[in-house]
Amino acid sequence: VTTFIGSNVGDWHVKELKPIRGESIPSVSRLQIEDHPTSVQLTGIWKLCGFVSNIRYANQSERKKILAIQEGLGRPQATCAALIPIRKNEAWWNLAQDERRAIFEEQSHHTAIGLQYLPAISRKLYHCRDLGEPFDFLTWFEYAPKDAAAFEELVIALRHTEEWKYVEREVDIRLIKV
Amino acid sequence: VTTFIGSNVGDWHVKELKPIRGESIPSVSRLQIEDHPTSVQLTGIWKLCGFVSNIRYANQSERKKILAIQEGLGRPQATCAALIPIRKNEAWWNLAQDERRAIFEEQSHHTAIGLQYLPAISRKLYHCRDLGEPFDFLTWFEYAPKDAAAFEELVIALRHTEEWKYVEREVDIRLIKV
Repeated sequence: VTTFIGSNVGDWHVKELKPIRGESIPSVSRLQIEDHPTSVQLTGIWKLCGFVSNIRYANQSERKKILAIQEGLGRPQATCAALIPIRKNEAWWNLAQDERRAIFEEQSHHTAIGLQYLPAISRKLYHCRDLGEPFDFLTWFEYAPKDAAAFEELVIALRHTEEWKYVEREVDIRLIKV
Repeated sequence: VTTFIGSNVGDWHVKELKPIRGESIPSVSRLQIEDHPTSVQLTGIWKLCGFVSNIRYANQSERKKILAIQEGLGRPQATCAALIPIRKNEAWWNLAQDERRAIFEEQSHHTAIGLQYLPAISRKLYHCRDLGEPFDFLTWFEYAPKDAAAFEELVIALRHTEEWKYVEREVDIRLIKV
């Protein structure tokens, strides 16, 4: 489990924190990410936890394309980041797997859209619904300053999809590496 | 998160505990299930934790069939239970969603087999891979003594599927309500 800690200490400077849908979270000046947090390190204004899991929707062909082009986190030029916590509504979670997949990809082209921005935008998805957290997912993106406009495009494209009609809470946190 | 605590106290008497594949877990005489465990209650010979999550493979038609016939846990006549912790191998978890679904249902008929034993056998699935637990799933079944033979059939049928070739650790714990 990885913990994102918002306070006035940490490796990432918070440039902007704004609610997109539903309730926001308190403003903070810094973000710290702890992969194996000890209780001592866990003080902060807020803490959001999540785990990386297996792929939930991508099929074999999509998975191969992603693995072939994506780049990892921590690239030296990727000094911009975004942490976007998201919660989907009950209607989404009551759907069966094939219904969620159809909305995610056949209708919303979630993976196809993301693939257009690889390898510039690195991405990692943390799951938290099953931990009883206030959000279902913590989405994390890293990119170089020159790719900032491309990242805005990606975010806007996803927010206009059918899938996003099921998003009931979303906060957009933009960060700069200290 | 639900915790299954093996020790010499609890509402379920352990009739048998045996390894099916891979390493076993220590024998205990009783099992206690805690939905919201406090640290005080958490002593025991072993503890296995998991969470209930959204449906991962069933499609809309399968989900409807299950919801239409299944019965809940805690039926007075269901005095027999089984806790079967399972871990699948890396090959399984490296598959994409469509590949896992095809093995799970089109090749192994996991849901179709389970449906044949509804409503006699009640079932609940707890996920634990994402919590860093020693197993990926804790499967829990409840049934009346008169359905014990049907339950054996179900377990044997599942163990002969293509899906079960990916199971690398499995322990079978049979229980009687105290």
